[in-house]
Amino acid sequence: MMNDFLEAQELLKNISKDQSTYETNEALKTIKRYNEELYLQTLKSFDTYTLANIATITPEHILEDILEHLSIIKIAKAVEELESDDATDLIKRFEELNPQKTLAILNRLSSEDKEEILRLKNYDENTAGAYMQTEIFTASIDESIEKAIKRYRILKHSGQVDQIFQVYIIDNQGKLCNAINLSDLLLWDFKLSFADIIKNNSEKYKSYSIKDYEDIQKAIDIVEDYDLSVLAVINDDGVLLGRITYDDIHDLIQENATEQIYNLAGVDADVEEESAFKAAKARAFWLMINLTTSLISANIISLFSGEIEKLVALAILMPIVASMGGNTGSQALAVTVRKLSLNEVEFKDAKKVILRESGISLLNGFIFAIIMSIIAFIWFKTALLGLVIALSMLINLALAGFVGSFVPLTLKKFKIDPAVGSSVVITAITDGLGFFSFLLLAKMILL
Amino acid sequence: MMNDFLEAQELLKNISKDQSTYETNEALKTIKRYNEELYLQTLKSFDTYTLANIATITPEHILEDILEHLSIIKIAKAVEELESDDATDLIKRFEELNPQKTLAILNRLSSEDKEEILRLKNYDENTAGAYMQTEIFTASIDESIEKAIKRYRILKHSGQVDQIFQVYIIDNQGKLCNAINLSDLLLWDFKLSFADIIKNNSEKYKSYSIKDYEDIQKAIDIVEDYDLSVLAVINDDGVLLGRITYDDIHDLIQENATEQIYNLAGVDADVEEESAFKAAKARAFWLMINLTTSLISANIISLFSGEIEKLVALAILMPIVASMGGNTGSQALAVTVRKLSLNEVEFKDAKKVILRESGISLLNGFIFAIIMSIIAFIWFKTALLGLVIALSMLINLALAGFVGSFVPLTLKKFKIDPAVGSSVVITAITDGLGFFSFLLLAKMILL
Repeated sequence: MMNDFLEAQELLKNISKDQSTYETNEALKTIKRYNEELYLQTLKSFDTYTLANIATITPEHILEDILEHLSIIKIAKAVEELESDDATDLIKRFEELNPQKTLAILNRLSSEDKEEILRLKNYDENTAGAYMQTEIFTASIDESIEKAIKRYRILKHSGQVDQIFQVYIIDNQGKLCNAINLSDLLLWDFKLSFADIIKNNSEKYKSYSIKDYEDIQKAIDIVEDYDLSVLAVINDDGVLLGRITYDDIHDLIQENATEQIYNLAGVDADVEEESAFKAAKARAFWLMINLTTSLISANIISLFSGEIEKLVALAILMPIVASMGGNTGSQALAVTVRKLSLNEVEFKDAKKVILRESGISLLNGFIFAIIMSIIAFIWFKTALLGLVIALSMLINLALAGFVGSFVPLTLKKFKIDPAVGSSVVITAITDGLGFFSFLLLAKMILL
Repeated sequence: MMNDFLEAQELLKNISKDQSTYETNEALKTIKRYNEELYLQTLKSFDTYTLANIATITPEHILEDILEHLSIIKIAKAVEELESDDATDLIKRFEELNPQKTLAILNRLSSEDKEEILRLKNYDENTAGAYMQTEIFTASIDESIEKAIKRYRILKHSGQVDQIFQVYIIDNQGKLCNAINLSDLLLWDFKLSFADIIKNNSEKYKSYSIKDYEDIQKAIDIVEDYDLSVLAVINDDGVLLGRITYDDIHDLIQENATEQIYNLAGVDADVEEESAFKAAKARAFWLMINLTTSLISANIISLFSGEIEKLVALAILMPIVASMGGNTGSQALAVTVRKLSLNEVEFKDAKKVILRESGISLLNGFIFAIIMSIIAFIWFKTALLGLVIALSMLINLALAGFVGSFVPLTLKKFKIDPAVGSSVVITAITDGLGFFSFLLLAKMILL
């Protein structure tokens, strides 16, 4: 284990600008585990650039240390190193930890940066505006390429813009008209104006954009559909406000996927980075709901106590029906949730999806009804028991496919994340129905 | 439902170059459902550019129709519209459907394109080489920017390169030395040579690369760690072979996430696009494994038939212990699988992860042991039954966290995808252990 520590120490000794922030952060976390003093010393030794990048991805407890142990001046300088979207995110996270210090940091920023962050902070979490950077490069249609390049050099050398992919052509009201890749400028005579080069290339230099208040999910869809590296953000009047870049889209895709996987398993992605205690508390919430639905199932079983006492085989076989139903439901759920999130399915396709999922599960219901009836017959030498388990297996599996697709589609219809809570609902139904159908059929047919 | 059809028809009437391929494909699928003849007519009417893009994403049955109903000359022209990586993928898919026609298509390509595709086809599915495009723009270090731009214009106008982000500086053995964003060239005097501008900017113009036989997952990691838009692919000697671009990385991230979600639920991502019958067959495989493990659990229960006959409360309560264990295990599994896939956890962190997951589940084990013992006591008025369920809940939940993290970490150690099959294994353990511990403790303490 000490190797971790030595490696981490080595890595943090020489931090260059192209060191992976992820690795630096991991090393920092390792150092903290072994030696608090060295950790604080390391934290203080970071230049503002490294500090800024670490702060964007580091867990809450290290952010707390930054607020506590570093000067407001240094933190403010680090914030200024970041692009507007990352700076805003960081300020939001600081604010949750210590609103007063965050205000002091904000007051240390240039009035321009401060205003920008305060404006961006107002966007709702899931809107395109919340993810946009305001560092963009614009030109008017009458400007010559040459003049624009001169301005670009100045902006770039002064550090006002960093990674620029496109020049946005705007009209005199600031409305977005076209977008031209900077590398495309190399193809033209620099004496030409933008109007000259757009004239016969309006399709090619068309701009892709999203409105600032629209769902960020829509931005992901546009970027993926058209393989864009950058997407413009405009307001309702078409005025250019900023851009969303491919690296933010990468992060969003990963975050969405993590959230889906966690939600389907009853885990809250936001707290998993925190202490084991907080994670346990969040997971206990879903376990509590599962306990409640399990108690309902137990109550269903208790309705048939007499039957179980008469024929203990029922207690032995009933979990099989419930388990197979739960599995079939989870399959339908995973497929439906994922297709919904990838926009491969919309609500108007609901009927088609439900029919397909029910069909698949009905088909498997038939197969496993037959298999299980044979096993039950061989095991307990009772033909009617085979019939009972076959029928309940068929009913439970067919319905598992139906609820596995119906539940997420319905949640989506009511704008609720279909990955959250669906699993618990579906297992509750397949468990309850599995026990109930099996025991009721046994009571009717066997006893 | 007919609205679908009319919308689809409308959309396919006027296809422009910037139409979303995804939408065109969806419309085509809709048309096929309603009117086979119109569908074939539409398929034949596509220009080679649209055809090529559709073919890269369309399901197998439409690819079959393309092979059957379109001329080899047209298909070959469509293949030539694609960049080398996409062209290779398409040829591979064609080959699975009809090797002879595919050979005929290959023979229709320019010998250069054919050779390229045959070379790329040889890469293993999960290597960086399998995802690279070979359309790149290179320059030697002594070349002036001006001369390079002239060459770039020619390449671009002749259609030999399409989307180019960087100029790669290579030495006279073809080894990759530096990478410069094309837009960065705008910052320099074009009379300068690349050597001049690299001299004091070696960090900035450093190239990021991956070897062609390395795992594509590593490419995703590098792109994410350094927020790259493009990553060079080199061979063992450092010779530049091609590049992987951000849009391929997007697709890979989405595909990985879909696979993980599907695998965790016992669904095979590859066949879900196919007919319901094929999907049902693939899902039945996992259901069969689940049936086997359920039968093992049933056998465990049957060992305690006598106890259940004596005290039917055992049959009523035992599914609760199993279900809570299953849920706890799934939580630990989802977190571990996801962290492994995001490289947030490696095998050397195994001890830490297992300790954390076991700690979380032990904590929740305590909480739910207490809650459940109270419920059992109130329900059945037997203090010892409360003790039995408390102890078995504690054992099962604590172990669920352990196996939920241990199983995926072990699979990863043996280079098996930790998302595949883990769920079934973990549910088998938590079910079996849940029933066994509860019934055995009941036998020992209660009866």
